[in-house]
Amino acid sequence: MKSTIITIGDEILIGQILDTNSRYISQALNRIGIVVAERTSIGDNATQITETLDRALAATDVVIITGGLGPTKDDITKHTLAKYFHSELVYNEKVGEDVKSLLALRGIAFNELNRGQAMVPRCCTVLYNNHGTAPGMWFEQGNKVVVSLPGVPFEMEHLISDSVIPMLRERFDLKSIVHKTMITSGIAESILAERIADWEDNLPDMLHLAYLPAPNIVRLRLSAYEVDGQSVEKIIDGQFEALRKIIHEAFVGFENASVEEIVHQLLIERGESLSIAESCTGGNIAAKFTAMAGASAYLHAGVVSYSNESKRDILGVNMDDIVRYGAVSEQVALQMAEGAKRVGASHYAISTTGIAGPTGGSAEKPVGTVWIGIATPTRTFAVLKNCGTDRGQIIQRATAYAIKLLLNELQCE
Amino acid sequence: MKSTIITIGDEILIGQILDTNSRYISQALNRIGIVVAERTSIGDNATQITETLDRALAATDVVIITGGLGPTKDDITKHTLAKYFHSELVYNEKVGEDVKSLLALRGIAFNELNRGQAMVPRCCTVLYNNHGTAPGMWFEQGNKVVVSLPGVPFEMEHLISDSVIPMLRERFDLKSIVHKTMITSGIAESILAERIADWEDNLPDMLHLAYLPAPNIVRLRLSAYEVDGQSVEKIIDGQFEALRKIIHEAFVGFENASVEEIVHQLLIERGESLSIAESCTGGNIAAKFTAMAGASAYLHAGVVSYSNESKRDILGVNMDDIVRYGAVSEQVALQMAEGAKRVGASHYAISTTGIAGPTGGSAEKPVGTVWIGIATPTRTFAVLKNCGTDRGQIIQRATAYAIKLLLNELQCE
Repeated sequence: MKSTIITIGDEILIGQILDTNSRYISQALNRIGIVVAERTSIGDNATQITETLDRALAATDVVIITGGLGPTKDDITKHTLAKYFHSELVYNEKVGEDVKSLLALRGIAFNELNRGQAMVPRCCTVLYNNHGTAPGMWFEQGNKVVVSLPGVPFEMEHLISDSVIPMLRERFDLKSIVHKTMITSGIAESILAERIADWEDNLPDMLHLAYLPAPNIVRLRLSAYEVDGQSVEKIIDGQFEALRKIIHEAFVGFENASVEEIVHQLLIERGESLSIAESCTGGNIAAKFTAMAGASAYLHAGVVSYSNESKRDILGVNMDDIVRYGAVSEQVALQMAEGAKRVGASHYAISTTGIAGPTGGSAEKPVGTVWIGIATPTRTFAVLKNCGTDRGQIIQRATAYAIKLLLNELQCE
Repeated sequence: MKSTIITIGDEILIGQILDTNSRYISQALNRIGIVVAERTSIGDNATQITETLDRALAATDVVIITGGLGPTKDDITKHTLAKYFHSELVYNEKVGEDVKSLLALRGIAFNELNRGQAMVPRCCTVLYNNHGTAPGMWFEQGNKVVVSLPGVPFEMEHLISDSVIPMLRERFDLKSIVHKTMITSGIAESILAERIADWEDNLPDMLHLAYLPAPNIVRLRLSAYEVDGQSVEKIIDGQFEALRKIIHEAFVGFENASVEEIVHQLLIERGESLSIAESCTGGNIAAKFTAMAGASAYLHAGVVSYSNESKRDILGVNMDDIVRYGAVSEQVALQMAEGAKRVGASHYAISTTGIAGPTGGSAEKPVGTVWIGIATPTRTFAVLKNCGTDRGQIIQRATAYAIKLLLNELQCE
């Protein structure tokens, strides 16, 4: 069973927004065994919508469309679909009442534009939207399904998980898609590929290997499409077991677990705690951890000590050392880590101090220079890392590297 | 001049990664006047690559492809393009030397797979990649251009801005694309559309209006494609001036400036400072500010006070009040804001304390309950906000709302 995802909106094509909807829908479809063959983003343009839909229905069985369902004139998806399926728009009482009560909650009067939102093509099954004013729509043509959903991510996500996914499972007899990813660290992609070449050549035909390189990490993903899930999962597990013996010291973990997720799990399992003192990463490390449910079990305190005074006043860094060695120095990184560990009364602490740029660099300490400090129950150390030249990249790399350093310590102890 | 962006990689189609490359390229092309007609993501599949390229070249003049250029077997873009353009692969000395020195810096030996990366189709113009081992390639067919770039975002971005954009400007005689966006706040989309209907109906034909709703904000974008840039910018400015008179109290600012960018600008212009105390938003607010170059001018300190002890020890929150009213309470939000302002010695402070879930909620304080505190030079206040039911959404909404509250204060004073 193959599918196409179509996201509609000029704001996507001009790069004004990032298309996160496609990813969410891809993951949801993969989980129930529907292969995403193609994802396409097009403008709010009736001809383009019609042509893309023609092509998607010729090549695949399920088409999921998002966007273009708002109350205003620039949104034309619903009218275009009504014409495409030769169906007239009719007023849906339940949608109308839903929109009215949603607006009433926010103290907004129901007007002609909102009435328009309750008009739906007669031929579709309405997917009621409990989180917004635009309903979803489910169309069938022969043995194929077209679903149209609002583009607001939160509304789309609820409609996908509460309505579309259960309905697709009901409607079709689906096989499974299995993905499993092993995370490796410390071996460059080309060297890794060389080392595992024999293993790769002997993989069964149904398994597809992909290399996913990232800073300091190469992920290896084995995928199998439209198979019997349980038996293939066992085959993949066996293959990864063999692989682990080949690359053993480079093995980090499984699945899409990010390094912070592995740290998160380890700290929770052990009942140990963490504090964070950030200068150049500016809260990014803390945000990575607090994005995960359960972080309150171990995250005692985070400090974004951007100014020298906050390094001194909150973390107890010696101002003389800041003056002598500079805020971006091993000494300051060490004192920040120790200060964070002490202030947060935690087992571990991470600190970062660096030059994120674009200004502030010098010949001796160019933009990208970052000192990362790690405090453990038994020692404190700091590592110098050049994290590149671009502000966003420097923040991301320093964040990734700091968390990886902590993971190394957790895995050693 | 129209273009298609094709991103290649199974990891995109299964939703393992978010496709940020398309957005970057869309913005870069728009800036030089090239319209992005379609963006498509496909798998590492030769047939699909060939068919998509056929279609893109039939419909548009410029095709930008990313992905599938790595050294490993799953990457097939280069071989597919060589076949597509009936060209053989030849060893490029300069690419070979570049790869060797890049690997030497990292202490990695040059092997057969790296040698393969220096093989390029004879017919292409090589775009040298200073940040990675896969070169970009520029093909011409008649009056059309196809560019293939590595999928690693940082490498792709450098090749786009350093090579592809200058070469496209040189190669084609380009018109301009003009986008300008006005940000409004406080009026629901349907009410706003009703209020500005006359203005919208009288817009000149070349201008396209788009509504972009987000929590608490509706952006209105006027776009004109392939026009004379300078004269159209003046026409757009005139239209927005008229619009501002219609919606005046709802006007927030112009362009894609996010609320945090406006706050960032205001604080820098005024020489005022900010500190932040975060519980449920966990560093996310600080990270939003520190992502922007120049934040060190005003961001004195951020505290992620996840534990009650850190609220007391770092921010001076009264532990009796935490026990009496709960950590998620108006009293604690107020004391956190005041504590952050005091500890950071800043003009303003933001605090958040809430229940991000999925656990920790109660009937009285369900998941999503967030108290946001704002301290200004003259007063401190706290606002209760229900931020939804999903952890990620709660963190994002509380972050957006807190920064908007601060903006309101900055705009009042």
